[in-house]
Amino acid sequence: MCEWSVNILIQGDYENCFGSGDNSEVLPTDTMKNTVYSLARESTATCIEDFGKELAAHFLSNYSQARTVSIDIKETSWDHLMLDGHLHPTTFHQQSGERQTVIVTATRGGTVSVVAGISGLVILKTSDSSFSGYIKDRFTTLRETSDRLLGTDVTASWTYDSDSLHFDRVRPQVRTALLSAFAEHKSLSVQHTLFAMAAAALDQVANILDVTLTMPNKHCLLVDLSPFGQDNPNQIFVPTDEPHGYIEATVKRDL
Amino acid sequence: MCEWSVNILIQGDYENCFGSGDNSEVLPTDTMKNTVYSLARESTATCIEDFGKELAAHFLSNYSQARTVSIDIKETSWDHLMLDGHLHPTTFHQQSGERQTVIVTATRGGTVSVVAGISGLVILKTSDSSFSGYIKDRFTTLRETSDRLLGTDVTASWTYDSDSLHFDRVRPQVRTALLSAFAEHKSLSVQHTLFAMAAAALDQVANILDVTLTMPNKHCLLVDLSPFGQDNPNQIFVPTDEPHGYIEATVKRDL
Amino acid sequence: MCEWSVNILIQGDYENCFGSGDNSEVLPTDTMKNTVYSLARESTATCIEDFGKELAAHFLSNYSQARTVSIDIKETSWDHLMLDGHLHPTTFHQQSGERQTVIVTATRGGTVSVVAGISGLVILKTSDSSFSGYIKDRFTTLRETSDRLLGTDVTASWTYDSDSLHFDRVRPQVRTALLSAFAEHKSLSVQHTLFAMAAAALDQVANILDVTLTMPNKHCLLVDLSPFGQDNPNQIFVPTDEPHGYIEATVKRDL
Amino acid sequence: MCEWSVNILIQGDYENCFGSGDNSEVLPTDTMKNTVYSLARESTATCIEDFGKELAAHFLSNYSQARTVSIDIKETSWDHLMLDGHLHPTTFHQQSGERQTVIVTATRGGTVSVVAGISGLVILKTSDSSFSGYIKDRFTTLRETSDRLLGTDVTASWTYDSDSLHFDRVRPQVRTALLSAFAEHKSLSVQHTLFAMAAAALDQVANILDVTLTMPNKHCLLVDLSPFGQDNPNQIFVPTDEPHGYIEATVKRDL
Repeated sequence: MCEWSVNILIQGDYENCFGSGDNSEVLPTDTMKNTVYSLARESTATCIEDFGKELAAHFLSNYSQARTVSIDIKETSWDHLMLDGHLHPTTFHQQSGERQTVIVTATRGGTVSVVAGISGLVILKTSDSSFSGYIKDRFTTLRETSDRLLGTDVTASWTYDSDSLHFDRVRPQVRTALLSAFAEHKSLSVQHTLFAMAAAALDQVANILDVTLTMPNKHCLLVDLSPFGQDNPNQIFVPTDEPHGYIEATVKRDL
Repeated sequence: MCEWSVNILIQGDYENCFGSGDNSEVLPTDTMKNTVYSLARESTATCIEDFGKELAAHFLSNYSQARTVSIDIKETSWDHLMLDGHLHPTTFHQQSGERQTVIVTATRGGTVSVVAGISGLVILKTSDSSFSGYIKDRFTTLRETSDRLLGTDVTASWTYDSDSLHFDRVRPQVRTALLSAFAEHKSLSVQHTLFAMAAAALDQVANILDVTLTMPNKHCLLVDLSPFGQDNPNQIFVPTDEPHGYIEATVKRDL
Repeated sequence: MCEWSVNILIQGDYENCFGSGDNSEVLPTDTMKNTVYSLARESTATCIEDFGKELAAHFLSNYSQARTVSIDIKETSWDHLMLDGHLHPTTFHQQSGERQTVIVTATRGGTVSVVAGISGLVILKTSDSSFSGYIKDRFTTLRETSDRLLGTDVTASWTYDSDSLHFDRVRPQVRTALLSAFAEHKSLSVQHTLFAMAAAALDQVANILDVTLTMPNKHCLLVDLSPFGQDNPNQIFVPTDEPHGYIEATVKRDL
Repeated sequence: MCEWSVNILIQGDYENCFGSGDNSEVLPTDTMKNTVYSLARESTATCIEDFGKELAAHFLSNYSQARTVSIDIKETSWDHLMLDGHLHPTTFHQQSGERQTVIVTATRGGTVSVVAGISGLVILKTSDSSFSGYIKDRFTTLRETSDRLLGTDVTASWTYDSDSLHFDRVRPQVRTALLSAFAEHKSLSVQHTLFAMAAAALDQVANILDVTLTMPNKHCLLVDLSPFGQDNPNQIFVPTDEPHGYIEATVKRDL
């Protein structure tokens, strides 16, 4: 069982549509919806990358006014329920807020780009994270730390070097590279760890051209317990929503 | 590592506070917050039930105007990250939106009630679910089905028969009983399955007095593909947000 | 134009439904939905209170197994768009997150209760608000203040003394009483102001029996600018989400 | 009283930071936060555009490694509470989810761009909206309509031709142009109305260079009451969340 959410964006020469209300080249949202259902019934695609390619090809080949078609698919993870050490065949469990994503973009007479990704990957490390040596000026109140929590909600995407890959095999390689680097990195800053993650993915997975990572710093502040006569050797933290740091970068392979 | 979110509700004789603005018996929110941090530093509790009991006892014993203290704690699950088949010691992964919950309520001169629960348990079964034989009248358009998807976002809670249990051992027993019953049940309706789940928990876990389940029916509607000349033998469904059914019941043990 | 969102809750003797999967007395959600649309087409009700009464009466009179029917309606406000000082006849503007609410509860052989309310009423006062004289103990770090911001997101409800009123005339009287009291009150605490608001409504509107108010304290903290060599005479505040105070009370008329 | 939410994005040469963890050119989030508070205390800006310019200039002039600074500010509207026909001087009411927005982008040695906007402008017209003449193919099930509801949640932005304007005077001119066009337009599609709105703004406000509008089609579907023996002459509609149309365009002035 899989749950896929599809967004379709068509760009093209719609001057008459916008300018004079001529709808003769407009494909209604409702028809797009029907098309997705109907093609899904016939499709043999087993991953969002391949279904995205089918949809993009369909809209591009059937509607001549479309110049560029972008298909954005998000997969909600459903796992078989584990019961007594076995996976139940017909019962499913939505375990995670992590989503698999893809944007397939096809341009008439051009190539098809496949940008896969992950969203909602919430991870945190309790060791090997420090933050010091930053700019100090009259607005500085933050204290340097050699041992802090580093938590983030990762959004990642990467561009494949081909639109004909076994995407289902490559995707977990990228994910594992990102996670291993996060876990093993001696982090001097979120930026530092972000780059290490992207570099690891580019290093370990030949089929990707670039990695874009968005890693908001989900600050966990050490609580000052000294007013109550207590120490706090990294025991009690308070997670905060705002303000928070927002670190984003795209790392590309040297060509 | 654990992440606990605490709500504290104090009820008592606060007539002067509300009526005349006399704050002499008011404990500020800010102080409650500090108290939670400080007690967390000293606490040896390893589960939310036990920490809830500590907090309730603290507020009841220190503030004589408090008549009833309710401590509501929600635990966000963090698991050690799995890498190469091993759990990483210092890296964590928030895998699920499922929360462990408890409400500990202590009344002066009375007992302590411990109501544990789960929220955000999203499950779905693809077989053994039908819905038929319901009322038909002039407003009926729904078709009977002998084979549908049954999806829900379970909120569960149960009352323990004692405030001195190994809560960490009993909790997974209740959870497993609920999930097994959901998976194995020949469902004739959400109500039918809800009752089977609650009955299973009461049957298998002696230490609980009742089970309350809220199970919204997260409808997955079979898409009609006949306008496109296609059949749809339970292949393509569309999940809908609204309107949806909302089924809730409390099942108590016969005493 | 009006936008109403309806929830229907039916309680009754559904033992066979839950226990053995007998659906013969079950009214499907889908049918309830159809019923709401169909009755809305025929209805002459101009307020949610009256439409709630119609729906409750319909379900109670047509389905003998229903013992208690609760109809919960929320109205989203749409105002005519103001253009050049005139209200445009066919263009509407959703100006506010404020909702009008009602819960009509009808019990077979019993009375009909009408509990009207408001949600999402976000208000803030910049003067006449202090907080001092509260409990001081070893966990206290909050400073007393004689001049603070008081902001809240009010949820209010009140019970009418009859189910046959011109609800559209009484409702704004209650709302005005609550708002006037909030604006004019010399607030010594949120509790103090909450009570003053409820008392004002009970005093000014004879047709209500009680008022329940939930007023979370949406703290706006004064920023400490002294590290930067600046004073902050109630100029710069930071709104915070959590932790926050949560004050709730029901005030009833002495009978 | 005003409530401003500020995001700061600094781009520049941070290769050492990302690559080797050298933080010597990193300005911590915490310091940015402090800077916003401190500059707000001194600022005489009365609109988000002017405060954005101050912040951008500050970061650009104080931190030489910053190449481009973007300041994104969102203003939450607070109005004086209306009581007995008068505006209360110290009590405020958050009436609308509409936000005023700006993105000020300053590049070292370059110009300052000011892109102002609106988000959360929820509007709906009940006349002068049709949709017909669109593509019909084998996936078409939508019926043409000459009279439908047209509802949307507008996000708008526009670029000023100068960074030295009385932004507070120009902003409402743009807003009024957009709203008037929406209200008065004989709409043949969302696209058609979107273009008319943008064109009106460009026509009526000389100081703007372009208008970008995002207007999701918040479908209100006519309910089919024929199964219940009723007609439905545009009386009963059901708003739907998904799927929905998403129309976006940028309209630029011919130069």
